[in-house]
Amino acid sequence: MMLKVAIVGAAGYTGGELFRILLRHPRVEVTYLAERKVYQGKRIDEVYPNLKAKTNLKFEELNLSKIGKLADLVFLALPDGVAMNLAPEILKRGKKVIDFSGDFRLKNVDTYKEWYKIKHKNPALVKKAVYGLPEIYKKKIRRASLIANPGCYATSAILGLAPLMDKDIANLSNIIIDSKSGVSGAGRSLSTVTHFPECNESMKAYKIGLHDHTPEIEQELGKLAQKKIKVSFTPHLIPLSRGILSTIYLSLKRRISVKELLRIYREFYQDAPFVRVLKKDELPSTKFVYAGNYLDLGIVVDKRVGRLVIVTAIDNLVKGAAGQAVENMNIMFGNDETLGLEEAGIFP
Amino acid sequence: MMLKVAIVGAAGYTGGELFRILLRHPRVEVTYLAERKVYQGKRIDEVYPNLKAKTNLKFEELNLSKIGKLADLVFLALPDGVAMNLAPEILKRGKKVIDFSGDFRLKNVDTYKEWYKIKHKNPALVKKAVYGLPEIYKKKIRRASLIANPGCYATSAILGLAPLMDKDIANLSNIIIDSKSGVSGAGRSLSTVTHFPECNESMKAYKIGLHDHTPEIEQELGKLAQKKIKVSFTPHLIPLSRGILSTIYLSLKRRISVKELLRIYREFYQDAPFVRVLKKDELPSTKFVYAGNYLDLGIVVDKRVGRLVIVTAIDNLVKGAAGQAVENMNIMFGNDETLGLEEAGIFP
Amino acid sequence: MMLKVAIVGAAGYTGGELFRILLRHPRVEVTYLAERKVYQGKRIDEVYPNLKAKTNLKFEELNLSKIGKLADLVFLALPDGVAMNLAPEILKRGKKVIDFSGDFRLKNVDTYKEWYKIKHKNPALVKKAVYGLPEIYKKKIRRASLIANPGCYATSAILGLAPLMDKDIANLSNIIIDSKSGVSGAGRSLSTVTHFPECNESMKAYKIGLHDHTPEIEQELGKLAQKKIKVSFTPHLIPLSRGILSTIYLSLKRRISVKELLRIYREFYQDAPFVRVLKKDELPSTKFVYAGNYLDLGIVVDKRVGRLVIVTAIDNLVKGAAGQAVENMNIMFGNDETLGLEEAGIFP
Amino acid sequence: MMLKVAIVGAAGYTGGELFRILLRHPRVEVTYLAERKVYQGKRIDEVYPNLKAKTNLKFEELNLSKIGKLADLVFLALPDGVAMNLAPEILKRGKKVIDFSGDFRLKNVDTYKEWYKIKHKNPALVKKAVYGLPEIYKKKIRRASLIANPGCYATSAILGLAPLMDKDIANLSNIIIDSKSGVSGAGRSLSTVTHFPECNESMKAYKIGLHDHTPEIEQELGKLAQKKIKVSFTPHLIPLSRGILSTIYLSLKRRISVKELLRIYREFYQDAPFVRVLKKDELPSTKFVYAGNYLDLGIVVDKRVGRLVIVTAIDNLVKGAAGQAVENMNIMFGNDETLGLEEAGIFP
Repeated sequence: MMLKVAIVGAAGYTGGELFRILLRHPRVEVTYLAERKVYQGKRIDEVYPNLKAKTNLKFEELNLSKIGKLADLVFLALPDGVAMNLAPEILKRGKKVIDFSGDFRLKNVDTYKEWYKIKHKNPALVKKAVYGLPEIYKKKIRRASLIANPGCYATSAILGLAPLMDKDIANLSNIIIDSKSGVSGAGRSLSTVTHFPECNESMKAYKIGLHDHTPEIEQELGKLAQKKIKVSFTPHLIPLSRGILSTIYLSLKRRISVKELLRIYREFYQDAPFVRVLKKDELPSTKFVYAGNYLDLGIVVDKRVGRLVIVTAIDNLVKGAAGQAVENMNIMFGNDETLGLEEAGIFP
Repeated sequence: MMLKVAIVGAAGYTGGELFRILLRHPRVEVTYLAERKVYQGKRIDEVYPNLKAKTNLKFEELNLSKIGKLADLVFLALPDGVAMNLAPEILKRGKKVIDFSGDFRLKNVDTYKEWYKIKHKNPALVKKAVYGLPEIYKKKIRRASLIANPGCYATSAILGLAPLMDKDIANLSNIIIDSKSGVSGAGRSLSTVTHFPECNESMKAYKIGLHDHTPEIEQELGKLAQKKIKVSFTPHLIPLSRGILSTIYLSLKRRISVKELLRIYREFYQDAPFVRVLKKDELPSTKFVYAGNYLDLGIVVDKRVGRLVIVTAIDNLVKGAAGQAVENMNIMFGNDETLGLEEAGIFP
Repeated sequence: MMLKVAIVGAAGYTGGELFRILLRHPRVEVTYLAERKVYQGKRIDEVYPNLKAKTNLKFEELNLSKIGKLADLVFLALPDGVAMNLAPEILKRGKKVIDFSGDFRLKNVDTYKEWYKIKHKNPALVKKAVYGLPEIYKKKIRRASLIANPGCYATSAILGLAPLMDKDIANLSNIIIDSKSGVSGAGRSLSTVTHFPECNESMKAYKIGLHDHTPEIEQELGKLAQKKIKVSFTPHLIPLSRGILSTIYLSLKRRISVKELLRIYREFYQDAPFVRVLKKDELPSTKFVYAGNYLDLGIVVDKRVGRLVIVTAIDNLVKGAAGQAVENMNIMFGNDETLGLEEAGIFP
Repeated sequence: MMLKVAIVGAAGYTGGELFRILLRHPRVEVTYLAERKVYQGKRIDEVYPNLKAKTNLKFEELNLSKIGKLADLVFLALPDGVAMNLAPEILKRGKKVIDFSGDFRLKNVDTYKEWYKIKHKNPALVKKAVYGLPEIYKKKIRRASLIANPGCYATSAILGLAPLMDKDIANLSNIIIDSKSGVSGAGRSLSTVTHFPECNESMKAYKIGLHDHTPEIEQELGKLAQKKIKVSFTPHLIPLSRGILSTIYLSLKRRISVKELLRIYREFYQDAPFVRVLKKDELPSTKFVYAGNYLDLGIVVDKRVGRLVIVTAIDNLVKGAAGQAVENMNIMFGNDETLGLEEAGIFP
């Protein structure tokens, strides 16, 4: 039987990518697309012409009772601060929710307020939400009715570090995450920094120490380490459409070989179909995960300085957003985790 | 039952893209990959790391008797002049062949020699080969054992012009095709013009009036028009990875509206699942066919100068090569033409 | 003695590029920058941080009497329809004007209205304006007080065709100009088509037969040919920051060799320091004129189809706008035409 | 009087950029270009067509006695290991040398051997060579006859850190330098990773902990700090033609404000015309130094984690190579340091 899903906020890049992935999913039917007034009545392929001839679905006004009738699962792709009000209404109708915003990611609502500058309206629901990183929370996701889909940068950072958090290998008070993102990560809203002539042939760092994926990374690493973790996180804007490369630096507490580290990582990710731990001396490239749901990961030990460098690569719109949401959906509804996500990634 | 296929020359971009598409095809198993010495023994995911975790297949030495045992269909992705010798050996073993080179595209072997500077060794086989453009030759493809898969530029040009060839609407002695291609069209061999710093932020025309897709375009248009057609064809190198945009100019012989032309085009392509004729005032963008098998087509009538401008957009590696080959395979083996090619194209 | 110049509308790409070029000009001092309210009080290097440490000049409110005192020459970089009102006020004060808009390019104000959808307010002044293409109008420019600086596409097209217009070599009723432009040509205003993720890895044609540089091309070619000329002109948006490549198609009326054509072109451009006619078998690349004031030009004769293909390459912001304006300025004020424009163009 | 200079190895990107800059230098004449056999007899504008019409100079075979006659200063743009043999021959003839390779950068020849895998042939000359970073060694450069021009990454890292090295503000045992470079930094030699379709739309780290600019950074920082410094240095390949962005991480030893740090940096660089220390909350972008000789520098204090983040941006071919060499030349020969380097950088 087909799972019926609705997407609220389908006109952004994440919503569009989600729709594209769901189109090829053998057990899903998208039944409802809600969007702001400006889109209502338009077909999704007018906004995403790559979808032409694939669908007749139109954007509609958000109507909760209609969603209640048409969908088993609702994806919310909305600005921060909106889903916290909307999700309870949907859950009340017995439907499940996967939310792309930051609203349900941070368990501490004070931390949420500090980073997002929004007072949380629904702390009780935050407690029930499951952080949708299947590599860590697969069991909880299975039983969840509300998923907080991880941030793109956060995914690339947490999965790079998770296997080390409960080991006494590296100094955890000193983690540096230097992330580089393609421009689709900045969304579809227009701005001078994403205007082609200014963005092309340019690189820059932004929001150093201030990006709201920071507390999300710290929360999840902290849980795994069972102690408070603070990280330095720097995002960069790079002139490509898709891809996040995160270069992560840790000081070693003891001598360790890459071989031993790879064993630890491979064991940690043995049941994770979308994490590809590369061989010694291999380093990931965002090219090789382009449009695919994989996270590629390479490890270097720099003995000379006693430091460990981990590099991860994902497609920010797939493993960093829509693909991971589909993984979560598959797990929640008893499908094989990889269903509809078998795509290898395009090259070149 | 699964169709077993072999790819000879799988380490180039076309071979790699073909393998990627076949991986997701529900009725195909790739059983054999042949390549030159330098690749033999390597796994395909060492050459195309996007395929990591998707396959264990290795490149082998070309062995015809092994191909004979392992494959029902052989794709040949080889330099011009090689397939003419290889194809008969495979056909002899009762296997079918889809060839990506120019060897079987031109019915006139003198024309072949003129443009490819190679004397044809197998004129008899040329006659039996079917030009694999499903929009025109679907019936013949169904019964073919040897397919000459069309050139990328040729596909974008012929499909842009085909519906007009038997109509008395435009002057056919005066066709100009101005095509712009992404760099993957130049293949995986290294050269200064495709070295990133020189290719990036640059545009150039090349082989003006000399490109070997010219006679292929003229042959096919000529057949449709039932008279000799000569075209001006100019290819350009554009700094993007994938995509061909062809802007085609024709002088009108009579007044005609876009509406009437769209009717003609839509009728001509009514059974063509991969040609999307856009609406009046819409123009195609290569972005919207990126990694998909579609050809998008827009039409403008410039009454002021009595000229018709047709613009087509394809992904050179998909509809321009590997995707179209899979279409041909589907038709040859009785599958639905679109099987394994449902992908919408990625965006952004 | 230093020439004092003002720029009105200096916050756009053309104004910024003009300022950058004038900064290195040994005989010019920019004394005044006027802009809209939102920029007033800001330093130009806040808007163009590449200029940091090079200038303290601020954007001011437009004040004609101040311009009258501070400047000998005023560059107007404003939307179409504005300069027609402003220029007479400046000329009245005895100052010279170089205008970047379309307002003074078309001698026929009905044609202006037809293409620009603006009724001209100052037809008398249109007559006095000189079309600022130094390769053709150097003598008139010398004595001009009002220059209509040519459009970027128009420059690339007219200079590609000018030497043929008074010769009986090609059929002039059948000219096709297929132009490809980098994105800075679309200006600094934000739009979805120039949003990086949508513009990157994409190509498209736009305004086919409708672009307002068309009548400008036809007017100038018509003058040279001494008869009415109509052209098909198609602009394309290409994912690079700077550069226009124009591929121009003409039917030959008689057999002619590239050698003979090169002789004609070289003679025509013998006193044109910024036109580089390439050798036989050489084709221009926008890369080689990047940030330089050159137009590179290559010629191909396709005997087989009796057609001539001319390819020109310019930097749209330099020879296509600000550089050409400085050339005009140099000529108007008795400097060497190349002063301040000696820059070779950067590579790679 | 004009300074006469020779360039040995002028066909690489550094040599080409140097020639371009020297062309506009008012007190320099390039008199001699030496290159390998394959280039000999060719004009430099055949290899760099942007230089067409600017020069008639040809590449010649390397001839030391000719250099001795024709040049006062010789730039060596050669692979590592070559200049160590060539420089003494030139110095012997009383000529000065600016070397772009690593041969004279490292004072410790054992360190040189360790990182470059080449045994040094001329340790005595290493001692006499001056490291050509004008912001630090201006006085020594003035009297030098042999300059080791700094590496591109090294320039971006050292200038980002230099002002802190003799202060007790940050922990110097824990420095991390994450650098992102455009592809021209990889040179003009062809390779698969710099082939456009594979490099475009991709990011990757390489040579983590192994890049030979590491010891250069450590040597210079160590001198300033007057103690042994070790750094983690990670270079990345980013799909743009020009630019290096270095993000540098340091742990603070005490509370300090950005304001105080800016004061320290501005004082340190008060006589450095090419270092632009940005204001609080401003971060550099490689776009704004494109083709210019500036290094832009921004500072962030992340109090929450007690860390300092410094970001620097340069054009790798200008401040990172040829521009800095011209700065050195100016200082050596008594010119104003900025002569010929006034260019603001192009935008967009």
